[in-house]
Amino acid sequence: MNKRIRTLLVEQPLNTKVSIKGWVRTRRDSGSFSFIEINDGSCLANIQVIAGNDLDNYQSEIKQLNTGCSVSIKGELKESPAKGQDVEIHANEICIVGLADPEAYPLQKKRHSFEFLREISHLRPRTNALGAVARVRSRLGYSVHRFFQERGFIQVHTPIITTSDCEGAGEMFQVTTAEEGKSGSHFFGRQAGLTVSGQLQAEVYALSLGDVYTFGPTFRAENSNTSRHLAEFWMIEPEMAFCDLRGNMRVAEDMMHYLLEDIMVSCAEDLELFNKFIEKGLLEKLGRVVEQEFAHVTYTDAVDLLLKAKKKFDYPVQWGIDLQSEHERYLTEEVFRRPLVVTDYPATIKPFYMRVNEDGRTVAAMDILVPGIGELVGGSQREERYDVLESRMVEAGIDLEEYQWYLDLRRYGTVPHAGFGLGFERLVQFVTGMKNIREVIPFPRTPGSAPC
Amino acid sequence: MNKRIRTLLVEQPLNTKVSIKGWVRTRRDSGSFSFIEINDGSCLANIQVIAGNDLDNYQSEIKQLNTGCSVSIKGELKESPAKGQDVEIHANEICIVGLADPEAYPLQKKRHSFEFLREISHLRPRTNALGAVARVRSRLGYSVHRFFQERGFIQVHTPIITTSDCEGAGEMFQVTTAEEGKSGSHFFGRQAGLTVSGQLQAEVYALSLGDVYTFGPTFRAENSNTSRHLAEFWMIEPEMAFCDLRGNMRVAEDMMHYLLEDIMVSCAEDLELFNKFIEKGLLEKLGRVVEQEFAHVTYTDAVDLLLKAKKKFDYPVQWGIDLQSEHERYLTEEVFRRPLVVTDYPATIKPFYMRVNEDGRTVAAMDILVPGIGELVGGSQREERYDVLESRMVEAGIDLEEYQWYLDLRRYGTVPHAGFGLGFERLVQFVTGMKNIREVIPFPRTPGSAPC
Repeated sequence: MNKRIRTLLVEQPLNTKVSIKGWVRTRRDSGSFSFIEINDGSCLANIQVIAGNDLDNYQSEIKQLNTGCSVSIKGELKESPAKGQDVEIHANEICIVGLADPEAYPLQKKRHSFEFLREISHLRPRTNALGAVARVRSRLGYSVHRFFQERGFIQVHTPIITTSDCEGAGEMFQVTTAEEGKSGSHFFGRQAGLTVSGQLQAEVYALSLGDVYTFGPTFRAENSNTSRHLAEFWMIEPEMAFCDLRGNMRVAEDMMHYLLEDIMVSCAEDLELFNKFIEKGLLEKLGRVVEQEFAHVTYTDAVDLLLKAKKKFDYPVQWGIDLQSEHERYLTEEVFRRPLVVTDYPATIKPFYMRVNEDGRTVAAMDILVPGIGELVGGSQREERYDVLESRMVEAGIDLEEYQWYLDLRRYGTVPHAGFGLGFERLVQFVTGMKNIREVIPFPRTPGSAPC
Repeated sequence: MNKRIRTLLVEQPLNTKVSIKGWVRTRRDSGSFSFIEINDGSCLANIQVIAGNDLDNYQSEIKQLNTGCSVSIKGELKESPAKGQDVEIHANEICIVGLADPEAYPLQKKRHSFEFLREISHLRPRTNALGAVARVRSRLGYSVHRFFQERGFIQVHTPIITTSDCEGAGEMFQVTTAEEGKSGSHFFGRQAGLTVSGQLQAEVYALSLGDVYTFGPTFRAENSNTSRHLAEFWMIEPEMAFCDLRGNMRVAEDMMHYLLEDIMVSCAEDLELFNKFIEKGLLEKLGRVVEQEFAHVTYTDAVDLLLKAKKKFDYPVQWGIDLQSEHERYLTEEVFRRPLVVTDYPATIKPFYMRVNEDGRTVAAMDILVPGIGELVGGSQREERYDVLESRMVEAGIDLEEYQWYLDLRRYGTVPHAGFGLGFERLVQFVTGMKNIREVIPFPRTPGSAPC
C-alpha cells in the first residue's frame, strides 16, 4: 500500500515491500546505480531511492529523471549505510508520472532567493523553506483551534463583507458588483467593504455565549509596500464575557505558551531548518519564551524607561505618543529581553471601544511585544458602560444610528468583557524567523500584486 | 471560583459553594422565594437559582430581574427536588451586572419567529435555537480541522482577493479602493475580486505537499433572494495529489461519517432541541447516515432512473441536462433513501478542470446528494494532462496567458489529483434541520442586506 514518506520514516517497516509517490528532488548516478531523492511534501526529509541498472526502464527513463519529475515507486525498505538517514528504498519499479523539462523548470538544485520565489508563488511551496513554512502555518492554525476549543470557546465566523469599520481608519476595500469607475446599484443596499476586524461582531456572540473566538481573513487598503504589511492577512480574535484586562492577558499568555510548546514538538524538523538557515538561535529564542512568564509594564512606566534610555531614537519620546517600532523593540529586546505586555495606554491614541480607566486619561488596553517582531497582540477590556461608550463614540465622530446594534450590547444585559487580536502572519514569522511577511502566507496580496 | 454552567451541570459538586455569571432567562416568584433561570451560553440548559426574601437586595433588585439582565451569583449547589433538573443553586448573593429594560428589550419569554430574529442579528444568538446553532456550527468546524489534520492534510489559506475566477460564471464581487461609481486606480494593478472557490490555488499546494485542504469564506454576487443562497458563505475544499475519483469519494464519505458521528455525541443536547422543535426525526436521519454506506450511481444510470420514474417533474429529463433540485431530491429521498454519490456527468455541463473520461463525453465528476438538502458536495478528479486541459480551456474561452500558472502544474511534475467542495452552511442545515440558510451563519449577507 502507498504510504506517505513521513509515515515510512517514523514507522520504518524494514525489509518489507513499500510503495511511495512523490517528486524527484535530485538524481545522482554512480556506476551501475542511481540515487534518487524523493519528497512528497509530508515532511521536510526526502527518502533516498536506489535504482539499479537492471531495471527495465533504467536507461530509457530513470536516467532522464530530474528535479520536479513526479514518480511512483515500488521497492523494499532497507537499513541505510549512508550518513544522515536510517532507511532507503531499493527500487523494483519506478514509473514516471509526469516530467519537468529541466530547460524550462524554474526550480533547480541550487538555492533561490525569496524575491525570485515570490514571482513564482505557484511553485515555491516545492522548495524546502516554503514547504516548511506551509506545514508550520497549518499546524499553528490547528493549535489555535485546539487551544480555544479545549477551553470551551465557540468559534464565530464573523462577516467578511461589512458595513462597520471597527478601526475607523478609512482603510477599507470597497466591495461592488460594478467594475471600477463604472456605476452600479449597491448590491447590499449601501456601500459595503471588507472587514478590518471581526471584533465588534465577535462581541455580539460573547455577550450571548460567553467565550468566543474568530479566526479569519482581514483586510487593509493601505498603500504600504514593506516587509511588514499585507493587504490581506489572517487574524485570531478571542472575546470573553465577564473578563477584565487581567483575565485577557492571562489568556493571551497561555495561548502563546501553548502554541509555541506544541510547534516545537510537532514541527521539530521544520524548525531545525529555520534555526540553521533563516534565524540562528531561533530554537533558543522560542524555548526561552515557553519557559518564561511575560514581563508587564504600564505605558506610563514604559515611557519613563524610554526617556531614561541611553539610546537615541528617531522618534522623540513623551507621554501621549504612540510607541514606534523602535521603542517597542528596545523595550522587549534590550530592557526586558522577553515578551512584554504594555498596559494602560493614553485614551487619545486608542479606539473608542476600549474601557476608560479610573484616571480618566488612560484605557484598559494591552499590547504584547515580542523580540524581533514588535507588536504581536493588541487587546483591551471593552467599554461596557453605555453612557461612557456613547460619549466616546460622539467624540470619535461615529454615527450612533449606524452603531445602535453595538450600543444595544450595553443596553441589554451588559457585562465587563475583553479580548485581543493576534496577527497570524506575525506569529508565523516569529516562529519561523522569516524576515518578510510575504513568505509566510501562501499568496501574498500587496499593492500592485494579486497574480492568481 | 467562577464556573461555566456546562461544567457545573457535568461535574455536579453537590453541597459546595459555587459562583456563576450569566443572563436571566426567566424569573418566577412563589411565596417567599424567587426562581431564576440563568443561562451563560456554555450550553443549552439553564441552571435554576433559588433566591429567598432574606437576601438584602431581594425587594429592591432581585424582584426587578427580568429576561436579559446580567447577574453574578454566589450560592450553594444542591440536589434539586424539581423535575427535569438534577441540581439547583441556593443563592447567598445575587449582584446585578447589567439591566435590560423589559419595555425595550426585543427578546421576551415567548417564542419569536426566525424572520423577526433575522432583523436583530446582534441579539438572536441569545435565543435557544440560534445559540444551539452557534455551538453546533463551531463544533462542526473544529471537527473538519480534526478530520483532516489527523490524516496529515495541510491547511492552506487560499486568497480571498483574487484575479482568478474558478467557475467562470461572472458572479464575482469586485474589490476596489474607490467608492462605487467613482474611478480610482487599481490597487492590485488590475481588476481583482472576491474568490468563488479556493480550489485552483489549493491545487498548487496539493502538487507540492500532497494532501491539503482549505476552509474559508467564498462569495457569489448572485441576485438570489432565496432560503438557499448567501452572498458570503464558507467552503471546505480538500485537494489530494495521487488521488483519483474513487479515492476522492472515499475521503468525502469518511468525512461525512466522522463529522456526524462526532456531532451526535458532542452536541447531543442541542440536537435534541432541533429534533423536537425544528425537524422531527432529525436524530434518526443522522443516525441512518452514520450507519449506512453511501449509494453510488452514474449520471447516465440516474437519468435512466428519472426517465422511468412514475413521478412528474417540472423540468423534463434527458441525457445532457443539469440535474435540478427536484431530480436530486427524488433520487436521494425516494429511490435510494440515503446519501447518494452521482458520478461521471456530461462534460458539457461541468467546468474545464474536470478530467475527461475515456468515453470522451463524460468527466470524472461526483456530486453527493443528501435527503432534505440536495447537493451537499461537488467534486472531481482534475484534468492532469496538459494537452487535454489546454484544449478544454480554449473551448471554454479561458485566457491561457492568465492561467499559465495553473497550466504549469501540469507542465512540471503533473500527477493525477482530485478534490471536492463542501458548502459548510448546507452541512450545518443538514445537521440542525434549519430550513433557511440565513439561520445557520452568524451574519447572513444577502441582496440588500449587510446591516453590521
